[in-house]
Amino acid sequence: MVAKYEDESLKFFSLNGNIPLAKKVAQVFGTELGECTIKSFSDGEISISIEESVRGVNTFIIQATNQPVNDYYMELLIMIDAMKRASAKTISVVLPYYAYARQDRTANPHEPITAKLIANLIVEAGATRVLTLDLHTVQVQGFFDIPVDNLFTMPLFAQYYRAKGMCGDDYVVVSPKNSGVQRARSLAEYLDTTIAIVDQGETETDEGYVIGDVENRNCILVDDILNSGKTFANASELLKANGAKEIYACASHALLSDGAKETLEQSEIADVCVTDSCLTQESRHPKNITYITCSKLLGEAVKRIHENTPMSPLFSKVDKDFL
Amino acid sequence: MVAKYEDESLKFFSLNGNIPLAKKVAQVFGTELGECTIKSFSDGEISISIEESVRGVNTFIIQATNQPVNDYYMELLIMIDAMKRASAKTISVVLPYYAYARQDRTANPHEPITAKLIANLIVEAGATRVLTLDLHTVQVQGFFDIPVDNLFTMPLFAQYYRAKGMCGDDYVVVSPKNSGVQRARSLAEYLDTTIAIVDQGETETDEGYVIGDVENRNCILVDDILNSGKTFANASELLKANGAKEIYACASHALLSDGAKETLEQSEIADVCVTDSCLTQESRHPKNITYITCSKLLGEAVKRIHENTPMSPLFSKVDKDFL
Amino acid sequence: MVAKYEDESLKFFSLNGNIPLAKKVAQVFGTELGECTIKSFSDGEISISIEESVRGVNTFIIQATNQPVNDYYMELLIMIDAMKRASAKTISVVLPYYAYARQDRTANPHEPITAKLIANLIVEAGATRVLTLDLHTVQVQGFFDIPVDNLFTMPLFAQYYRAKGMCGDDYVVVSPKNSGVQRARSLAEYLDTTIAIVDQGETETDEGYVIGDVENRNCILVDDILNSGKTFANASELLKANGAKEIYACASHALLSDGAKETLEQSEIADVCVTDSCLTQESRHPKNITYITCSKLLGEAVKRIHENTPMSPLFSKVDKDFL
Amino acid sequence: MVAKYEDESLKFFSLNGNIPLAKKVAQVFGTELGECTIKSFSDGEISISIEESVRGVNTFIIQATNQPVNDYYMELLIMIDAMKRASAKTISVVLPYYAYARQDRTANPHEPITAKLIANLIVEAGATRVLTLDLHTVQVQGFFDIPVDNLFTMPLFAQYYRAKGMCGDDYVVVSPKNSGVQRARSLAEYLDTTIAIVDQGETETDEGYVIGDVENRNCILVDDILNSGKTFANASELLKANGAKEIYACASHALLSDGAKETLEQSEIADVCVTDSCLTQESRHPKNITYITCSKLLGEAVKRIHENTPMSPLFSKVDKDFL
Amino acid sequence: MVAKYEDESLKFFSLNGNIPLAKKVAQVFGTELGECTIKSFSDGEISISIEESVRGVNTFIIQATNQPVNDYYMELLIMIDAMKRASAKTISVVLPYYAYARQDRTANPHEPITAKLIANLIVEAGATRVLTLDLHTVQVQGFFDIPVDNLFTMPLFAQYYRAKGMCGDDYVVVSPKNSGVQRARSLAEYLDTTIAIVDQGETETDEGYVIGDVENRNCILVDDILNSGKTFANASELLKANGAKEIYACASHALLSDGAKETLEQSEIADVCVTDSCLTQESRHPKNITYITCSKLLGEAVKRIHENTPMSPLFSKVDKDFL
Amino acid sequence: MVAKYEDESLKFFSLNGNIPLAKKVAQVFGTELGECTIKSFSDGEISISIEESVRGVNTFIIQATNQPVNDYYMELLIMIDAMKRASAKTISVVLPYYAYARQDRTANPHEPITAKLIANLIVEAGATRVLTLDLHTVQVQGFFDIPVDNLFTMPLFAQYYRAKGMCGDDYVVVSPKNSGVQRARSLAEYLDTTIAIVDQGETETDEGYVIGDVENRNCILVDDILNSGKTFANASELLKANGAKEIYACASHALLSDGAKETLEQSEIADVCVTDSCLTQESRHPKNITYITCSKLLGEAVKRIHENTPMSPLFSKVDKDFL
Repeated sequence: MVAKYEDESLKFFSLNGNIPLAKKVAQVFGTELGECTIKSFSDGEISISIEESVRGVNTFIIQATNQPVNDYYMELLIMIDAMKRASAKTISVVLPYYAYARQDRTANPHEPITAKLIANLIVEAGATRVLTLDLHTVQVQGFFDIPVDNLFTMPLFAQYYRAKGMCGDDYVVVSPKNSGVQRARSLAEYLDTTIAIVDQGETETDEGYVIGDVENRNCILVDDILNSGKTFANASELLKANGAKEIYACASHALLSDGAKETLEQSEIADVCVTDSCLTQESRHPKNITYITCSKLLGEAVKRIHENTPMSPLFSKVDKDFL
Repeated sequence: MVAKYEDESLKFFSLNGNIPLAKKVAQVFGTELGECTIKSFSDGEISISIEESVRGVNTFIIQATNQPVNDYYMELLIMIDAMKRASAKTISVVLPYYAYARQDRTANPHEPITAKLIANLIVEAGATRVLTLDLHTVQVQGFFDIPVDNLFTMPLFAQYYRAKGMCGDDYVVVSPKNSGVQRARSLAEYLDTTIAIVDQGETETDEGYVIGDVENRNCILVDDILNSGKTFANASELLKANGAKEIYACASHALLSDGAKETLEQSEIADVCVTDSCLTQESRHPKNITYITCSKLLGEAVKRIHENTPMSPLFSKVDKDFL
Repeated sequence: MVAKYEDESLKFFSLNGNIPLAKKVAQVFGTELGECTIKSFSDGEISISIEESVRGVNTFIIQATNQPVNDYYMELLIMIDAMKRASAKTISVVLPYYAYARQDRTANPHEPITAKLIANLIVEAGATRVLTLDLHTVQVQGFFDIPVDNLFTMPLFAQYYRAKGMCGDDYVVVSPKNSGVQRARSLAEYLDTTIAIVDQGETETDEGYVIGDVENRNCILVDDILNSGKTFANASELLKANGAKEIYACASHALLSDGAKETLEQSEIADVCVTDSCLTQESRHPKNITYITCSKLLGEAVKRIHENTPMSPLFSKVDKDFL
Repeated sequence: MVAKYEDESLKFFSLNGNIPLAKKVAQVFGTELGECTIKSFSDGEISISIEESVRGVNTFIIQATNQPVNDYYMELLIMIDAMKRASAKTISVVLPYYAYARQDRTANPHEPITAKLIANLIVEAGATRVLTLDLHTVQVQGFFDIPVDNLFTMPLFAQYYRAKGMCGDDYVVVSPKNSGVQRARSLAEYLDTTIAIVDQGETETDEGYVIGDVENRNCILVDDILNSGKTFANASELLKANGAKEIYACASHALLSDGAKETLEQSEIADVCVTDSCLTQESRHPKNITYITCSKLLGEAVKRIHENTPMSPLFSKVDKDFL
Repeated sequence: MVAKYEDESLKFFSLNGNIPLAKKVAQVFGTELGECTIKSFSDGEISISIEESVRGVNTFIIQATNQPVNDYYMELLIMIDAMKRASAKTISVVLPYYAYARQDRTANPHEPITAKLIANLIVEAGATRVLTLDLHTVQVQGFFDIPVDNLFTMPLFAQYYRAKGMCGDDYVVVSPKNSGVQRARSLAEYLDTTIAIVDQGETETDEGYVIGDVENRNCILVDDILNSGKTFANASELLKANGAKEIYACASHALLSDGAKETLEQSEIADVCVTDSCLTQESRHPKNITYITCSKLLGEAVKRIHENTPMSPLFSKVDKDFL
Repeated sequence: MVAKYEDESLKFFSLNGNIPLAKKVAQVFGTELGECTIKSFSDGEISISIEESVRGVNTFIIQATNQPVNDYYMELLIMIDAMKRASAKTISVVLPYYAYARQDRTANPHEPITAKLIANLIVEAGATRVLTLDLHTVQVQGFFDIPVDNLFTMPLFAQYYRAKGMCGDDYVVVSPKNSGVQRARSLAEYLDTTIAIVDQGETETDEGYVIGDVENRNCILVDDILNSGKTFANASELLKANGAKEIYACASHALLSDGAKETLEQSEIADVCVTDSCLTQESRHPKNITYITCSKLLGEAVKRIHENTPMSPLFSKVDKDFL
């Protein structure tokens, strides 16, 4: 049991996105969640009331913006507005999952950059700082002009796999698509091995191909967002066809939308390791999924922000607390 | 049949909120809705792509933000961002219904002012002008520093009732609550009569009372937002108890949430007149409802904005086109 | 005698609007007014110099913006600018009376929203917080994106009337015009009674009428701003004509412009109760006026802002300190 | 008679500061002043209503901010707000006299920079461009980030003196204080002569002294602002004491505050030449004053701004139209 | 010879970064470079004067920000400020090379995001639009909230290689480092072939390895920025060691810093194809370099921006004009 | 030896502009320079990394922006960005020399106001306060809306000259050009004497002339910026021609560009006194130059800013610590 955090200048609030995670984060430094009421009216409007004074307080608001995405973002923006008008000293937003992060460029003409819009809305509402976890692209940090600390999940997965002895030349870390190479490379460094890439075809008839050597090696697929499960499933099929032995997968954010459970259970993947950054109903969890928690990492980061101690140990690859 | 509007520097787009109304507004000056694709991904994210060039164009985006409120607002914000990045010359937002408008002040400490937040988000996203219809409180205009034209629906209702001969001393316009007195008074002036007020109790045991003389007179209840129907139903009961003859009602925005159909059909109200500012499924419409359209008013306003002709005729009480 | 307030991180300055009130507010927590010099040059320009260091200090500036309105606002804006450049830590503006608050919407096309302009100017100059007293419309709070605390005067008037036993069914609270119903209703709740409304005609020939039952009851007229006194005088005449017994009146802000003294003395009103939010020459005060002070309320609010304790007790209807 | 200006996309409005000048400027290109109503309420608030549509129009607002300074600035800010909300395309502010321009730095600690505050307020209200006449210091241009064109009056005075043959070595241009040397030098170049400076003492007992050679020469004192007349009067006394022959003076902005008439009439100055940038009552004008008009210069500048033709000819020293 | 572009509302200016390219771009639509003077004072300050009126004009400023990077950026910012104050209608910035684009995230704690800083400075100075060429990461587009059009160079290189018959299975497109996979993939699609990756070691002793199959195939290395040439040289060595046949390379931006000439000439690379986006002295060009021009692409884009015609054809993979 | 400054909430960083001065300033209150790494890449880009945590710290960054001007400004802007993203509590910029300060107005049409641009860039990057030393024009303070403290060097020079007995009627303080009269006058007051002015001709053939009496008096020329030395050299020649005895000179900022050494050594000036605000190579220093340090003044100011004690003593003319 953690001792009660004594500093009253810190209050930690959770919205509806992922309350179990919020509670775990709060426990990291022995605080309780601040009191607030979130109501939905019959016409769909959200109403928020903070039930305790935040005047002059350093506030943290945690919200995981998985489904229903837009309702959760609106909750967040309204909460920030309420904090600002209630005279909070600082308003730090903790986003274990940053929805819309993939819409980070105009892929085609006449498209929005919704990840930037979200950043602008959060700042406009009144946030003074943001804490994220494994952003889809690290450049999204630069969408903000307020401080953003982006924590990495790779050390968590490295710890998970090393504990099972899954490292070295028998293993290869595989990016299931051509755009996640950096993430694969980071995990590979932790696991003392090399990487390969599955370049999935963009059309029905284009099957894709494997770049790099996977024959007779165990593969660990790594991605940031696990939504329908198809990216992992297709990649594992191609890997098997290229002679891979056992196949594992890990992903930072488990959205698990409709059909993901079936797709993953029917795939070649022995174990899918994910963090608890997103909350989904138990019934959506495939049997071969393993949850590890990111709460200690988030909690430690919140504490360091509040106490003005350096964040750098959390980013260090050799930090023993997180490996 | 209206002739095609020849000015290519105007493009009019509709989001998902109320496409039938959007089409009617577009017809007012013979244009067609611009092409755009709005997709929902399996994880709940919205993706928007404008399917034609808007470079240097004066764009209008119409969105009625009734249920699902938050999705429709996010659609709007993303669309504005897309317009901005696609180099639209101006971005005018047409909001037949402005959700969250009732959250326009901090009723209790530690509350947000969500109506202001919405205004800030719309401006931050990049809108250059807003057109609204019968805002809950006119002060919301001042929440913006871009031009806002707020159109009034009272002339439409006045026209409806006068066409039926419902005016003069036999009728009294009644505000069903103590906060809508100005709206009642405006309609009363159009109908050459006086007003009364139902001061509804705030608690279960407080029944409320009628202020003003309604005995042996026909009552026309008037409100801006018709959500559950309970405000109208309770007011009509009190009016009957105070000796009122026939009871009618009108409201600008028909949200008709769950239960409204039954409440209104079982009430003492002979006819509920509403505009088509909000779109709801047919199955939610009570038998005693009558829809009148606000499309001509909105279309005329859009035209005047685009052609830089004065809006003032639309606000004049004696303008024959709208009475 | 109040003990000296020991916290040197707070300094409280008054401009020329209402120095007697400023002194009383300062006494609430035992501080003295900060030293500053306000000069008017022969060409009409104002020059301000702060005569003590405010570097890193939480500053409060009190200014009642009654006549001369524009000079007092300019004093305020210049003072805020001086505070900002002199490195004040925070700049809180206390506005017992917010002039221009009635210009809060575009009543006709081509009109400004001057209440919003004033808000923008105050923020642009550098204010970080605003404290107001009984704003004309509460929505003006939303004109700001910095925290605004709006205090209510109704508890002060309620205390005044209850102390005289003026409550219950013999009394009726009357709004002298159709737009102040909420304020009347709030006072009525404090006095355990009902409300009525005087709907004053908008033209010379339109005499107006009383909505609600006033016959044989004592009437308490309530309004926020008492300027020429005509609204009260006309309303009291109509009430008498409708059989009212004694007539009383109260208003938060006593501007008392030319002629108000005569109008009020010649009216049917037995007693007009006002707060000292505005300062006017003694010679303008009618005989039937009673001043109560808002200084304790303002002082308590300033203290709570500075000490980061909750404001909510000041807004609570049952708080014994203010009733 | 100037032909009517045919371009309806330009509208030119005057506030109360200097209507005679406004009319002359309008005549320069054959337009009439736009219709607007400026009311003062009995409580001192100003109310403005634009009486014609400005939707999509390039508007110019002329306001000379001499006494009452603060009322005239508030008129200006309110008018800009009205223009913005009435959808003017551009809002250009013409300030023949920029009050508070001398408060352009913090002379002592804890002072405001009111000239910058004024610039910020004008921009915040919504102005898109500013046109000034002989700013007290040219650096004030840089207080704005919108385009500012600052016109010079020296060519007007040069034309006045050259027409009288007042140039060459018999004359010396004198700055009456140590801070206006640049202005003196500019006029001296136009008049083919040299400059001298009166360094007026800062205390009662310090009489000041003349720097440079004035003996047996006619002196032309030059300053930007003529307020009390004391600077000119004291300087002329010192010049006489140093052997100067005849003394003349010119100033861009004639504020002529109380006592200026007497001071100037009793001084040694033969003729004081000023522009009509400021309007004062006839009764304040000393006998030895001569008014020349800046209306042609302002009118030409407005025209060039509207027609997007270069301003540079107006700044050229050799331009024949202005010399 | 291109006909003179007749639209006087467009003016195209070049700063010192790459005047030969600027002239070629201007020729695309028959305009000449606008007149401006850029001076360097003896103390190192830059002074810029625009030598023709830009009042109301749509201006384009082209500046390639290769060495000396900081001087060229300061030139750009000063020029934008000059344009803004000289009342340009729009200010579009054309950046064939966006220096600092690689500093787009905080790789380690306590680091700036200089690419975002540059974006902020450009917007703060007054730019209204940006046109870039092959940004290091496309997310940099989202660093701006003004429209950004990012053109791609891959079609230019594809055209170059296809004209030589260099496509199909005998060739493999190789990313010389693990972060440029998307760019390689894009070129591979144009050339109907697959990709490989060289994962270069991060330390002296770590030699790196090749991911994917290059044995007996001709390799085309592709990168965005060619600075020291070491990335290409090291990659080509590893490819040769893995059995590659001939090796080619292409890069969008040829910075060619000290030593690049020698490194490239001594490498295994037969031909290095680059665009003329950056200007360097002839003496720095290695013998095996081939320049192709991006001027037609940039010129066409400028024209489309000015004429409000769609940009999309320039982004289309099948557009015949650019392949 | 100064005792170590114990307050860890202050950190003081130096960029490359003038590290010797930075070290002296740090010594004033016993702190050491914070650790940061500034690298220049082979392509000319600067890279900065702060090597210690600044989370929640009051940071000061000192940078003298003499040659290479643009590199030093870019260093500064990048450092500010890094501080902001690393969560510094405040970011105070100390600019002993503010390059571009002379470009403070549009001398001719179509020119930038670069001094304002620099101010905007510094604020946009994230600075929260600025400390300058003898700005070229004090109005530049008003270019900022964050607090700016501008220290004066005249007391330092006064101390230097008084220590040598150089004051009273035998001496005259001379401005070497018509625009620096205020600075001369300030020094003259300290030295109990009068001023004269050299009005240097603007063309080759115009030799200029001396305004005021210098015959048989020792002259002390005073200017803010000493660049090529020509202004001083020309002025001293004219003074000698007008009968001046010995000639001295002082300047706040010694840029000493190419040729300055020779020009000054060959001039009539006996001694040129300058501060160490700018750092130049020893080989550029003329023999007749004397350096005095501004480090104590700057250090004291930084201390007062950090400790929230008044700055006013530093501006006082009679303060014994600085005279």
